Amino acid sequence: MDAADVVEPGVPTGRRRERAGGRDGRRSGQGTAPPHRAAPYILRNIPTYDILGEESLLRIEAVADRILAEIGIEFRDDPVALQHWKGAGADVDGLLVKFEPGMLREILKSAPSSFTQHARNPANNVEIGGKSVVFAPAYGSPFVMDLDKGRRYGTIEDFRNFVKLAQSSPWLHHSGGTICEPVDVPVNKRHLDMVYAHLKYSDRCFMGSVTAENRAEESIEMARIVFGRGFVDRNCVILGNVNVNSPLVWDGTMTNALRAYARANQAAVIVPFILGGAMGPVTNAGAIAQALAETMAGCALTQLERKGAPVIFGNFLSSMSLRSGSPTFGTPEPAIGSMVIGQLARRLDLPLRCAGNFSNSKLPDAQAMNEGTMSMLSAVHCGANFILHSAGFLDGLLSMSYEKFVMDADLCGALHSYLAGVVVDDNSLALDAFREVGVGKHFLGCAHTMENYQTAFWDSAVADNEPFEKWSAAGGSDAASRANRRWKQMLADYQAPAMDVAVDEALVDYVERTKGAQADAWY
Amino acid sequence: MDAADVVEPGVPTGRRRERAGGRDGRRSGQGTAPPHRAAPYILRNIPTYDILGEESLLRIEAVADRILAEIGIEFRDDPVALQHWKGAGADVDGLLVKFEPGMLREILKSAPSSFTQHARNPANNVEIGGKSVVFAPAYGSPFVMDLDKGRRYGTIEDFRNFVKLAQSSPWLHHSGGTICEPVDVPVNKRHLDMVYAHLKYSDRCFMGSVTAENRAEESIEMARIVFGRGFVDRNCVILGNVNVNSPLVWDGTMTNALRAYARANQAAVIVPFILGGAMGPVTNAGAIAQALAETMAGCALTQLERKGAPVIFGNFLSSMSLRSGSPTFGTPEPAIGSMVIGQLARRLDLPLRCAGNFSNSKLPDAQAMNEGTMSMLSAVHCGANFILHSAGFLDGLLSMSYEKFVMDADLCGALHSYLAGVVVDDNSLALDAFREVGVGKHFLGCAHTMENYQTAFWDSAVADNEPFEKWSAAGGSDAASRANRRWKQMLADYQAPAMDVAVDEALVDYVERTKGAQADAWY
Repeated sequence: MDAADVVEPGVPTGRRRERAGGRDGRRSGQGTAPPHRAAPYILRNIPTYDILGEESLLRIEAVADRILAEIGIEFRDDPVALQHWKGAGADVDGLLVKFEPGMLREILKSAPSSFTQHARNPANNVEIGGKSVVFAPAYGSPFVMDLDKGRRYGTIEDFRNFVKLAQSSPWLHHSGGTICEPVDVPVNKRHLDMVYAHLKYSDRCFMGSVTAENRAEESIEMARIVFGRGFVDRNCVILGNVNVNSPLVWDGTMTNALRAYARANQAAVIVPFILGGAMGPVTNAGAIAQALAETMAGCALTQLERKGAPVIFGNFLSSMSLRSGSPTFGTPEPAIGSMVIGQLARRLDLPLRCAGNFSNSKLPDAQAMNEGTMSMLSAVHCGANFILHSAGFLDGLLSMSYEKFVMDADLCGALHSYLAGVVVDDNSLALDAFREVGVGKHFLGCAHTMENYQTAFWDSAVADNEPFEKWSAAGGSDAASRANRRWKQMLADYQAPAMDVAVDEALVDYVERTKGAQADAWY
Repeated sequence: MDAADVVEPGVPTGRRRERAGGRDGRRSGQGTAPPHRAAPYILRNIPTYDILGEESLLRIEAVADRILAEIGIEFRDDPVALQHWKGAGADVDGLLVKFEPGMLREILKSAPSSFTQHARNPANNVEIGGKSVVFAPAYGSPFVMDLDKGRRYGTIEDFRNFVKLAQSSPWLHHSGGTICEPVDVPVNKRHLDMVYAHLKYSDRCFMGSVTAENRAEESIEMARIVFGRGFVDRNCVILGNVNVNSPLVWDGTMTNALRAYARANQAAVIVPFILGGAMGPVTNAGAIAQALAETMAGCALTQLERKGAPVIFGNFLSSMSLRSGSPTFGTPEPAIGSMVIGQLARRLDLPLRCAGNFSNSKLPDAQAMNEGTMSMLSAVHCGANFILHSAGFLDGLLSMSYEKFVMDADLCGALHSYLAGVVVDDNSLALDAFREVGVGKHFLGCAHTMENYQTAFWDSAVADNEPFEKWSAAGGSDAASRANRRWKQMLADYQAPAMDVAVDEALVDYVERTKGAQADAWY
C-alpha cells in the first residue's frame, strides 16, 4: 500500500481519483483544488441529524398505516400488480388496494439494507445504504441553459455534454439518468441514446429508462451487453427511478417499469412527489405520513416481484408559493422535513434517496445557491445514501444549468470535507504544535502545519478567495461567470474512458436494431 | 387573548410583529411575505446537531486543560486582570497565567446559563441562552457596498441606514453593534454616534464599544440615560463583543473593556478568532481545543470582576486558502467544527455565540449565498443563542453589503420556519384530509388546506418563484437586483420608533459634552 492508498476519514477504501489537473494543476493556481482525493463514494463520518423523538415517529407511522388500511392505494393499468397484492393477502377491491397494518413492513424485510451498484469500471462501484453517500446529477429537465445561449430545449448533444461533465468531476460519484431530455430524439428511442451515452462517455454507475416497460427492459438489456447476462442477474448494475402519482395512486407505466427492474434484480428507486397542499396535505407531518405509505407500497411491490431485489426508499418533498400556487424548491419546510424522512427510512432499514440541490431560481445566482445549499445540506444531514439532483437543478427542475452544474459539483466537493466531520486524534489535537509555537506567535511555519496543510481545508475551484484588489484587477467576476469558464474548460479537457471495441460495437448494433424495429414516436 | 396571540411552534410568547406590509401588502403581491408573525426571538423546536460522542469531547476538553495548565495564556497591559488571577489561585508568572485543570470550570459556575437582554421597547427584549436564537447584523466592516456605488468606506449615514434596515426587518431580533465603521467620524468619538444611532433609530437590543475602556463605559453610560442607573445595575441592556488575540494572548484593551461590561453587570461576548494554520493549528480539533481554553479564560475573568455577571461563550472559526494564504469563510471545516463548539458550550452551561452568515465573495452572488447558507445553517444547528453576523457579511467581513443584508435577512426569515421543526399533532397529520380527498384527487381546495395554508410555508420576499415566462417578461431579474430594489424601498418606508423627547435630549447632550471634552483622534 503506497501513500495514495492511506485511508482518509470518511473516504471508503478502493481506487481514488486525483482531482482533474492534479498537483501540477494546483500549483499553477488555475482554480483547481487541493490534493484531497475524490472517492468512488463517501462514507459519512458524522451522525445523521435526527430531529423527532420516538413518540412523534410512531404517530407518523400510525397515520401511514391508517392511510394504507382505511383509504388505500389505487394501482392502475397493471393486473399483475393487483395479482401480487391478492397473493400477499391485501384487500383488493377493483383497483383499490388496502393493507393491514404491519403487512408491508413484513414484506419489506426481504429487501437489502445496503447493496453495491456495479460500474463498468469496478473502481467506480458504489455502495448504496448504511453510511454511504452517492452524488448523482439532476434528472429530468426538458430545458438546458447556460449564460451564453440562455434557455432552450435539451438535445442529445447537451445530454452527452452533461455525462462528460459528470465524468470529469471528482466530486460526483454517479452518471445519473435522464440528465436532460434529449428532445431532438423521438420519445420512444431516447432511452437507447441516453443509456448508450452513459455507457460510452462515462465509466461510472448510471440509471435507465422507466417511461415504458419495454424501455426499462431495453435499458437493462444494454447493461447485459456490457456486464454479461449472468452477472446482471446476480448484481445491481442499473437503477430505475419510478414516481408515485400522488396522492395514493400508482400508475401502470411506473409499476410495470418498477417490476421490470425488480424482475431483473436491479434497483428501483420509489419516489412520491408531493407538493404540499396539492398532491398531499399542506402540513409537513401529513405529507410525510402519506409519502411513507406510498413508498412502502412501492418498495413492497418490488419484493413481491422478486424477493430480495434491491430497492431504494425515495422521497421528493416540495412546498408551494402561497401567492402564485407554484411549486417552490430549496425552502425550509421540505429541508427540515427531510430529516424525518431519513429517520423513517432507517426504521425500515432501507437505503434512502432524499432531497438534492433544489432551486426555483431561473439563473445561477444568489437565490440558486441559497436554496440549493439549504436543500443539499438537508440531503446529507438526513442520511440520504443516493442523492439524485446533486448538480445542475434550476428553475424547479425545468432547466438543467451548465453553470449551476459546476457550482453544485463544487459544493459536492465541499461536502466530502463536511462529511468527514471533526477528526479527534493526537495529530488533530496538535498539543505538540502548541508546545512548539507557544503564546502570541503564529502557526504558519510550524511542523504541524507543514505536515497537515495540504489536506486540512477544502479549496473551492469556483469561489474567489483573493483579496478585493486582486479580484477587482482580474476583472471582478461573479461566481456564475467563473462557472461558465470552468464548464467549457472541462468539456475541452474531457477524455473518454476506454471501452472494449467489441462491446461498443455490440451496443451500437443493439441500439440500431432496436430503433429500426419501431417507427419514431414523438409523444 | 385574541387570535394574534396564539402561540406558534418555536415562537416565544410576547408581542409579535406583523411583517412590514401586513396582510394587505401580501395581497398586493409586491414581494412581501405571508402572515408568519415575526417574534422578538426564536425558541427552537428542533434539537441541536451533536456530531461528537462523549469520548471525543473529553479528549478535546483534556487538551484545552493541558494548554491552560502547561502553556498558559498571556494577559497584557491589564494589572487588575493579573490581580484577579492571583486572587483566584492561578499560577501568575509575569504576564503568563497558568490554570490548574478544573479551576476555570469552577469559576464559571456563577455565570448564568441564560439571561434577558432588555430593549428600550420591552416587547423586543431577547432571551440569550437555552433554546433561544437571536439574529443580529454583521459587525465591524470598514467598507460598505451596494450595486449602484460599489465598495467604499462606511460613513455614519451608512451606519444609520443599516440600523434602520435591521429595525425594519421582522426576521432580525437585535440591532447589533459596529454594523460598519463610520470612518467619517473620529475614531475616539465613533462609539457615541453609533450607540446614539442604535438607541434613536431602533428600539431593539444593541451592543456598545469595546475599543477602549472609556468607550465601553461611555456606551454603558448612554444606556443608563435610557434605562436608568438602578435598572442597568440589575439587568443586562447592552452587550460588548471582545476578541482574544489568538493564540493564547488577551490584550489589555479587550480585558479592560470586558471588565467594564462585567463590572456594570452587562454581558461580554468572549470571542477567539482563529484562522486555522495561522492563529491556531491547521487541524479543526486543535483549533477547537484552543478556542475552548481561550474562551473559558475570558468568561472566567468576567466572573472574577463581578460574580454572576452575564457572559456569552463566543467563537469565530475560519479556514485558510491553501493557494493564497487568505482567510476563507463559509467553508465546510468551520461549519462542521461549529457543531463541536456548540457541544462544548452546552457542557459549560453557557449561552453561545457561534458562526453567522459568512462569505468571502466580493459580490452578492451565488458564492455569497452558498457560503452564507452553509455557515448560517451551522449557526442554528450548533445551538448558537446569539448569532452575530446574521446579515450583510461580505468579502471576509471587509464589506457590509446592502444587497446581501436583504438576502441574509430573508434567510433569517426562512430559519424561523426551519427552527419550528416538524410539528406532529392531529391537525398536521391531517388524517381527516385524507378521508376527505381520497385517492387521486388534489388537496388544493380541501378544508384542511384552507385552514392551514396561510401559515404552512415560508414565502421569501427575495426569491422569484414565478414561472420562467412570467419572470422573463418582468425583466428576468437576478436575486441581487431584487435585493437592491428592496433595501431602497425599506429605507423609503422606514419609520422611526417613538422616543421620549427628554431622553433624546439627554442623550444628545451627553454625546455633545463627551465629544467636546476631547480632541478628535483618527487612530
